[in-house]
Amino acid sequence: MNPTISAFESSPDRGRGLARDMRVRWALEEAGQPYEVRLLSFAAMKAPAHRALHPFGQIPTYQEDDLVLFESGGIVLHIAEHHAGLLPADANARARAITWMFAAVNTVEVPIIEFQNAKLLERDKSWYDERLPLVVERVRVRLGELSDRLGDAEWLDGAFSAGDLMMVAVLLRLRPSGMLDEDARLAAYVARGEARPAYQRAFAAQLAVFTGRSG
Amino acid sequence: MNPTISAFESSPDRGRGLARDMRVRWALEEAGQPYEVRLLSFAAMKAPAHRALHPFGQIPTYQEDDLVLFESGGIVLHIAEHHAGLLPADANARARAITWMFAAVNTVEVPIIEFQNAKLLERDKSWYDERLPLVVERVRVRLGELSDRLGDAEWLDGAFSAGDLMMVAVLLRLRPSGMLDEDARLAAYVARGEARPAYQRAFAAQLAVFTGRSG
Repeated sequence: MNPTISAFESSPDRGRGLARDMRVRWALEEAGQPYEVRLLSFAAMKAPAHRALHPFGQIPTYQEDDLVLFESGGIVLHIAEHHAGLLPADANARARAITWMFAAVNTVEVPIIEFQNAKLLERDKSWYDERLPLVVERVRVRLGELSDRLGDAEWLDGAFSAGDLMMVAVLLRLRPSGMLDEDARLAAYVARGEARPAYQRAFAAQLAVFTGRSG
Repeated sequence: MNPTISAFESSPDRGRGLARDMRVRWALEEAGQPYEVRLLSFAAMKAPAHRALHPFGQIPTYQEDDLVLFESGGIVLHIAEHHAGLLPADANARARAITWMFAAVNTVEVPIIEFQNAKLLERDKSWYDERLPLVVERVRVRLGELSDRLGDAEWLDGAFSAGDLMMVAVLLRLRPSGMLDEDARLAAYVARGEARPAYQRAFAAQLAVFTGRSG
């Protein structure tokens, strides 16, 4: 039986592919693994039935036979471990790819979420205009460090891996802000991720939920 | 040869065990793996030689023969995969433990870092007093959800795992704020983590850097 993931019934970003189910869809497409999707309203996401699967009442979840997972990083790593194409065979390179997954969600995404919280949750506050540059600067520091490490390489460490998948997905959260285009190397890196056929299929699938048109 | 980790030469938290090397020390102690420590000044941490190991100029790093890792989550998972005691043998339970590692750093730690940024970086700002309750509330929501899931269980999913190690370490960042003690279940959960002999050994080792007294 195919695994089932959960996603927003009404995409909060109008199908721009920024919700976290996109990371899991992309990984499944890279792996060539068909999957089912269970769509959830915002209310259903916070209801006890979904909380039983996801303690924090969010998407995505991942169900495969009697296994239930609930965090995009954990799900992507699970997929990467059970299919070819997302983790190198060499043990050291594999450990480094996993470290990049954690760097994406714990070092790069943290200031990006703080930036998005400011934009989405504090736009009407008296401090918004004065505080935003501080938060933007925290994001820029991380982007600069990441860009320095990437240099002219195609991917973060050798061939494309689950580390790149998570990093590109995290960086894409910045697309609406225009910040991504300030660094040519990172912009090209993200564009390489988006150009992958697996990304394209995943993007089309999540967009179809919003437009109501299948494949 | 024993692996070498890096840590702060001058502990910013005066040896309270809140720096991220603590997570790696604890995992190594759980694994029974001796290790060496390379201490870094703040300047050395941002210098090119260290940046070659850690793109974001932080601690901890992990060096083992020709493998270099740089993110606490990635390092702890690497240790957990190569030693007994931090991941269950059952494949599904193992995937769930890893999902809890990601939940710790990407769902629970994110608002905690935002809270700490407010306390450490924005204390002198005009908006500090008015904004802080908003940020505190974001943390409380996550803590409440985590507490609901934990319930009366000893650990998050069966036996103690790397998922608990990361979660306890993340929650400990809240200790100075007093917020941890607002929830009896979470406070007891963290106390169980701290009571583990491996935690105690790791804590003593990081404290010795600050006090200048070895073991």
